[in-house]
Amino acid sequence: MRSVSVIGVGLSKFGERWDTSFRQLIAEAGVKAILDSGIDGKDIEAIYGGCMASGRFIGQEHIGALIVDQLGLNPIPSTRLEAACASGSVAFRNAYLAIASGMHDVVAVGGVEKMTEVSVEDAATALGGAGDQEWELFIGATFPALYALIARRHMQEYGTTEEQMALCAVKNHDNGSKNPYAQYQNKITLETVMNSGVIASPLKLFDCSPITDGASAVILTAKNQHVKILTSQVATDSTGLAGRESITEIKATKLASQKAFASANIDPQEINVAELHDCFTIAEILALEDIGFAKKGEAGPRLEKGQFKLGSKGLIVNTSGGLKAAGHPVGATGVKQVVEIVQQLRGTAGKRQAEGDAKLGLTHNIGGSGATAVIHILTNKGKAFNKN
Amino acid sequence: MRSVSVIGVGLSKFGERWDTSFRQLIAEAGVKAILDSGIDGKDIEAIYGGCMASGRFIGQEHIGALIVDQLGLNPIPSTRLEAACASGSVAFRNAYLAIASGMHDVVAVGGVEKMTEVSVEDAATALGGAGDQEWELFIGATFPALYALIARRHMQEYGTTEEQMALCAVKNHDNGSKNPYAQYQNKITLETVMNSGVIASPLKLFDCSPITDGASAVILTAKNQHVKILTSQVATDSTGLAGRESITEIKATKLASQKAFASANIDPQEINVAELHDCFTIAEILALEDIGFAKKGEAGPRLEKGQFKLGSKGLIVNTSGGLKAAGHPVGATGVKQVVEIVQQLRGTAGKRQAEGDAKLGLTHNIGGSGATAVIHILTNKGKAFNKN
Repeated sequence: MRSVSVIGVGLSKFGERWDTSFRQLIAEAGVKAILDSGIDGKDIEAIYGGCMASGRFIGQEHIGALIVDQLGLNPIPSTRLEAACASGSVAFRNAYLAIASGMHDVVAVGGVEKMTEVSVEDAATALGGAGDQEWELFIGATFPALYALIARRHMQEYGTTEEQMALCAVKNHDNGSKNPYAQYQNKITLETVMNSGVIASPLKLFDCSPITDGASAVILTAKNQHVKILTSQVATDSTGLAGRESITEIKATKLASQKAFASANIDPQEINVAELHDCFTIAEILALEDIGFAKKGEAGPRLEKGQFKLGSKGLIVNTSGGLKAAGHPVGATGVKQVVEIVQQLRGTAGKRQAEGDAKLGLTHNIGGSGATAVIHILTNKGKAFNKN
Repeated sequence: MRSVSVIGVGLSKFGERWDTSFRQLIAEAGVKAILDSGIDGKDIEAIYGGCMASGRFIGQEHIGALIVDQLGLNPIPSTRLEAACASGSVAFRNAYLAIASGMHDVVAVGGVEKMTEVSVEDAATALGGAGDQEWELFIGATFPALYALIARRHMQEYGTTEEQMALCAVKNHDNGSKNPYAQYQNKITLETVMNSGVIASPLKLFDCSPITDGASAVILTAKNQHVKILTSQVATDSTGLAGRESITEIKATKLASQKAFASANIDPQEINVAELHDCFTIAEILALEDIGFAKKGEAGPRLEKGQFKLGSKGLIVNTSGGLKAAGHPVGATGVKQVVEIVQQLRGTAGKRQAEGDAKLGLTHNIGGSGATAVIHILTNKGKAFNKN
């Protein structure tokens, strides 16, 4: 397998983008990534696009063709990949493999979703398609309900508290306040979360990531440049919660991250910055534990101690604001996580920059309630990470 | 690039499958393909699934996870790819590339769509998402309307007649009557087509492929076995018709097939059997001409002369019954085309078997009105095709 580097990144502003269209969001992120890479659009050999539910949100399928058309790059191959909220990471992974395998030399990856053109009820139903439609959504189990079951069980088994979960949201809003692309750039307090309306107990409004419009793009190349991808791993599990061995862990996250650390030959403790999938606050706690950043049941207490936030020692989590504050345009999220890690590894994250030299960054993106988990580890080649 | 062979094929019965569910269709085709291949399910390293609009049709996304879960094969990677009606071929192509590049040794490909759980109006709207939603569907241009524009212009420029188009449907129903998996296994006459209700003039009901439930699956391996894939090519074009240089040809088909013939080092005239994308009868005429099986404007007259049908000399087209008679479960169609060609090359197509030794077969799958075109050429290694 060849070495693969990220040489360009671009984001649209995330938020309620009533001012623009799905295809314009693609261009907004895509053109930035191409300009940032310094390559000519004509050098791009293929496009991989992540999008979850454009059919439900805007009535448009055939997203690969739409992306290549919008960027004026046809007739090159352009493929849409879908893995619910992990669609962006799955697109990134397949683009990475296309270069690593020697098939292509320069590839563009995009992620996009425009979710605000339908009612919140219709959006919740569309998102329910990320789980098991027949055995969960049909009987009323929307995503807040599924994650509420997980949260309640985690509280029961490990003593995790609503306040500990809330601290994820507070931290991520702090980070989002420093991110000009974030949907929410306002800080919140523990009380903001605790006093917000109950969505599915114990989850309250501020435990939940929002409905978001947005797009993200990166350019990959076979050349060994700043920033390098160390590994890309994915694992799958039962679509519905009922098929899982346990609901207080995401087994697919554990498997994918174990493979990632083994393949990159590093330990979780060596990661400096991570973008974790906080669709709900409990999901960030699960990710911290399942990846091995915290022992089982200890993520909550460590959040209480002020860990994982900018300025703290050790791993810094969700400097972008995460899904909670930066927003969660589902198909775009996985690629946005990579954009943030690249900026951290380049040292260009501005007010969000983690202190010290960030040498290793990780992205963790979940599809549905954990039926797909994708882990990427990136390294700052410029600062010469060399394990051996 | 390594050699890639198809070692197992499977289909569900195509049709209005009120008796079964989306996930059961996957199992119906998938288990057959695994059994046909002679491998153990545990040998499968990854799954690529094609599905266009499950979100619109059954409220379910995250199809990669659903497939791997349904086949009991998690935690291996399982990815859904979407390119409208070419979703199956794009899944097949990416699986082929995964093996050719050395990434995997054994991969399963599935295609699936369950289209009859919504009204015909809702299905037509969902399918409209294969074209340009903003610039075509929103103003009322459904797919029959788009292909009617193409047909009318082709009649004007080349003298193609409604009768010539109708003969595609007659031929394909003849073939479908020999296919136990086909949605329609009844022969029809020229009068059946000509006297059927007008859908979008000049296209009548029997010029149009139906709404279908169905699934298809194949198993690919790196071993050099019977049947071998010679090449996989794709090209893209503008999503909407308004962006095209011409609407009497599908430029993406021309580009993809030119690349395919060059890459395989063969001429169109060497192909024995082809499955062409006849979503509407005019589409088969375009494909015959754009791939180079007939000169521009001559496909219609050659159909009148009785060419391309079983028992005629030269190329035999759509022995499966094509989209018209076998049915068009959009995400499944591209993989079903491969299943048919494999059966022809194996000599196991029964009453549909083309006479003589079929040595080279081609599949042609279109997304939307031609924004994506995928060409695969397969060869019967057992009968020792050797160009050089």
